[in-house]
Parts: sequence; C-alpha cells; structure tokens
Amino acid sequence: MTAPDRPDPYRALERIRARVRRTPVIRDDRLDAETGAQLHFKCEHLQDTGSFKLRGASHAVSRLPPDCPGVATHSSGNHGAALALAARRRGLAAHVVMPEDAVRSKVAAVRAYGGTVHFCTPTQAAREAGLAGLVETGLAAVPPYDHDDVIAGQGTLAVELLADIPDLDLLVAPVGGGGLLSGMALAACSHSRPVGIIGAEPAGADDTWRSLRLGARVTDHHPETMADGLRALVAERTLTIIGEHVDEVIRVEEAGILAAMTRIYACLKQVVEPSGAVALAAVLAAPERFAGRRVGVVLSGGNLDVDALLAPLAGAAGGG
Amino acid sequence: MTAPDRPDPYRALERIRARVRRTPVIRDDRLDAETGAQLHFKCEHLQDTGSFKLRGASHAVSRLPPDCPGVATHSSGNHGAALALAARRRGLAAHVVMPEDAVRSKVAAVRAYGGTVHFCTPTQAAREAGLAGLVETGLAAVPPYDHDDVIAGQGTLAVELLADIPDLDLLVAPVGGGGLLSGMALAACSHSRPVGIIGAEPAGADDTWRSLRLGARVTDHHPETMADGLRALVAERTLTIIGEHVDEVIRVEEAGILAAMTRIYACLKQVVEPSGAVALAAVLAAPERFAGRRVGVVLSGGNLDVDALLAPLAGAAGGG
Repeated sequence: MTAPDRPDPYRALERIRARVRRTPVIRDDRLDAETGAQLHFKCEHLQDTGSFKLRGASHAVSRLPPDCPGVATHSSGNHGAALALAARRRGLAAHVVMPEDAVRSKVAAVRAYGGTVHFCTPTQAAREAGLAGLVETGLAAVPPYDHDDVIAGQGTLAVELLADIPDLDLLVAPVGGGGLLSGMALAACSHSRPVGIIGAEPAGADDTWRSLRLGARVTDHHPETMADGLRALVAERTLTIIGEHVDEVIRVEEAGILAAMTRIYACLKQVVEPSGAVALAAVLAAPERFAGRRVGVVLSGGNLDVDALLAPLAGAAGGG
Repeated sequence: MTAPDRPDPYRALERIRARVRRTPVIRDDRLDAETGAQLHFKCEHLQDTGSFKLRGASHAVSRLPPDCPGVATHSSGNHGAALALAARRRGLAAHVVMPEDAVRSKVAAVRAYGGTVHFCTPTQAAREAGLAGLVETGLAAVPPYDHDDVIAGQGTLAVELLADIPDLDLLVAPVGGGGLLSGMALAACSHSRPVGIIGAEPAGADDTWRSLRLGARVTDHHPETMADGLRALVAERTLTIIGEHVDEVIRVEEAGILAAMTRIYACLKQVVEPSGAVALAAVLAAPERFAGRRVGVVLSGGNLDVDALLAPLAGAAGGG
C-alpha cells in the first residue's frame, strides 16, 4: 500500500535541520519509579511555535515550487502557527481555516506569526470545505497531516530521538490525524535495531483505534476530548502507514490525560498542553506494556491558554 | 566586615559537584525582544528537590562532623526538602520546623525525602524558637540562609552560570533570607570579568530593600506575598555581604510576579513557583536597567501545588 517513494524522515531532516530546533530529551527518577520503565521525554513543546508541527510545515514549505503564491491549511492551531512561521520565513502569505472553538491563544499565535485566520464551524467537513475554497484562489494546500511531505517532516522527531538514545525499545506518540505517528513509524522502520511504536489516543476521539479494529477507516467521528490537538480524523494515507507499522494504539480517558499533565508539571516541571500529555497517559494506563523497557515518550506541544491556567493565582496577586 | 575566611562558592562546588545537578540555561527570543536584553535563564527549578536549596544543604551537610546525630532547620519548604534529601544521603535524620501555612505540596515533599515536620505559627520568631528547641536535643542546626556553608553552597549556582556564559554583564536573583543572593555575589566577585548583581524582592516582603535604605537591618517584618519562598527576614550575615557586593535591590509587585510567571509558562514553557518568577519580574519592572545587557536570570524553584493549579482543567476531564 505504501507508495514506492514513501515519505523519508531521514532525508527530510537533511532539508530542515537549520529550520527546526533540536529539542532536548529529559528524564525523571520518580516517573521511572512509578512506571517501572526507563522514560525518555522528547521535548517538542520547546520546539519553535511550541509544537512538533513546525517540522512538517517547514519540510512541506521547503518543497513548494518557487512561484508558489502562498499557502493555506486547516488547523486546530499548532499546525496553523507552524505553517504561518514556515511561510513567513520564505516570504509567503499563509491562510489558516480554524474551528470557531479553537483555543484562543492558538488563534493569537497564528496571527502573531503573520497568518490570516478564517473561522469555520468545528467539524471536519467544514474545515476541509474551507481549505478547498482557499485552494481555489490559487494558494498551495499544506494540510496538517494528509500529505507525504508533512508526514516525512514530523518523522524527523523520531530520527533525532533515536540518534540521541539509540537503544530505545519503544516509542510512544499521540495520534490525531496521524501525521506524527505515521512519520515516526517510518523513521523507526529504518533504525539500526528494532523499535516498537505505539500510538496514544484519547478515548473520546478514538477514530484510529476503531479504524484499526474495523480494518477500514471510520468516518463517524464526534470527538469529545480536552486534547484539542487530537480531535482530527485520521486520514487514509496516515492510517495505511499506521496499520502497517504501528504495534498498537492505546486509548486514554480524560482523567488519565489530566493526571499525566499533573505528573509532567510536578515531576518534569514542564508546561504541556493536554495533547502533549497523552503519550505519558498511555504509559500510565498500561504500565505492564512498558515496564522494564526503554521508552521514548513524545511531549508533543505546550500551547495552553496560560492566563486561564493561572487565574487561581490572580486572586492572590490582587490581594498582595 | 567580611570574615577573613569568607564563604567560597568555588571551593563549595568542588565538594558538592557529584551531589547536585548542573542545571541547564535556556533562552527565548520573545522575552529578549520584549525586554531588549539578552536573557539567560538558569533552571534551578530542574535541580533535584525542585529548587536551588539543595546546593546549600548539600554543602552544609558535607561539612558536618562524622558523629553528627542528625540535622534540624526551619523552612517554608524548599530548604526543608533539600536538607531532608541531603541528610538522607548521609544516613542522618532531618527535622524541619515549618509554618502552619506552608504550601501543602512542600510539606509532602519534606516527608517524601524522609524528613520529620514540626509545625509552628507562621512568624520568624516562632520558626527560630522551634529550631532552637530542636538544637537543644542535640541536632545540628542547618539554618536556611544564616550560615556560611549554606551561603557558599547557594553561590555555586553562579559559579556554574558564569562558567557556561562567561560574558554575562548582570546577574539577577531573588532575595528572601539572602543566602542565594549573597552567595552569588561572592561568586561574581571572583569572576574573571566584572559582573553586576541585582536582587529581586517582593514589595510585600521588602525587608532587604528597606534595610539597605536604612543602613541597618530592619526587624519589623510582616510579609504579604504569594512568593512563599521569599517571606523570611534577611539575616545580619547575608545583609552584610549584600550591602558590600550587590548593586541594587529591585522591588516587584504581586501583579508583576504573576505576569512573570505567565511569561515563563507561555514563552519558556517551564513550571516555576511564584518565588522562582521574581527575578524575571524585576527585569520586566525596570527594563531600562537591563536593556542591551547580557543578563543571567535565576529561575530559583518550581514547587507548586500542581493539583490546585490544574483544577480548572479537571472540570473538562470530568465531562469527557
């Protein structure tokens, strides 16, 4: 099923090395003790624009023809911000279709990087229709995951992680549209030793899990999860790669996502968004699957409405 | 005024190098743009026990006599946790006098590292009386800042920072009891080139600022600040060093502390406690003092009640 020239994360990293940050990998004794695993956290919330999305966006933009008039996409936020920055670096305009209920700070980020936001109703169909309309005006589509160049770009995360920690037994990454998980799976395939790969998906947006069980891509999809970055429906392209190369998708409950965020804050002292905690949530949900293994866990993004988060402290500030 | 054998952070680092983490230094383009300075953040919230306090505690414990029966201190939390860990590593008991209003997670941390907590009313006098009572039982006092070995230990933070970024023009550190600021000042004095040093103090606990203005240590001290780690009264010992070697103390309002925490969360994606944001708050309060300079900014600690912080998200989790 894979195209003969399937996405190649190793070649992609050669193209984008100067455009993305090589993010650090961190560890914590307490989390290792709690899980019985050796956890290595890849800090993509410290990537420029605050998520791994800059990898795929930078790679796709680097491969646009010289006469490209500008780019367009749909996004819950992180891909939009990443594409806006990648486009601006090439002097291109970026137009981003976003659901009306997108996290406010993510809308602001797209605009801060110079992107133009077009709101739509929060459904997959409305997003895709909005993008189709923009493409009709002549803009080049850089969709958030259903694109070989984007998949190859996201996979560079695993290339870096496996270069830093070559003896990992397993990788765990969140799955929404599937760009990151499929790209990482392709990177893991080419590693010098066998590496398992596991997807982590909110139970409230488990279209990939259901598709794999059914043996075909589901389309009834009504996501309900705080992990706003993982509400998208998996694509045929990414699902095919995931079906071939991913060992398992583990579903996590909302309470598990919140618990994982709490552990990441308290133990790693890192700010991640809900989607960014889903991979650790999967480890905490199925510790027997990971115990005794060396596991690469992706902290995929850190873009929260921080003002809302710190509101409880604001009372104290007013009273001081 | 300085004793002939004044605290020596360089020698202290030789003693404790294997016992403390060499914490990373991070940067952010947006914060540089906002302030006009080049800011280098020393991540002591990523130190073991979540604050710089492990430096002083480890150094003091390393210099106790072999027949020491155990240690005692008073602490709002971070020094207590650090001392408990440092003592446990030497097989010693640690007793910690804490104010009744200490942050709950800090009480839990002292106990998690094996320390015994003794609560007292939240006043300086009650803390010191509690410690005196423990010392009468034969325990060795390792006070949180009024101790040469502690001061030298805290100063190792600046030794590391100046080794990593030798051309810094200024260091900014929070001041509560003054152990960190005085230790860093002594380290800066011995650097190969001149380095300015600035203290950052909550306006609601401005005993050091007032003492420097008055030319004598004030004792009327009724701290009101969310920065629970900076409520202690400066000691004669630390005030003397600060008076000789620190250029200035900048006071910051509570709203400024909260704003700095917000920027650290949003831009650096790091979890710091209010005290840990006070140094950046000083930079944001007096940008003209820092513009165009290379500035080392201490993120001194990251121990928050994370459950309370994430409570707004818990509603979303319940609904998923």
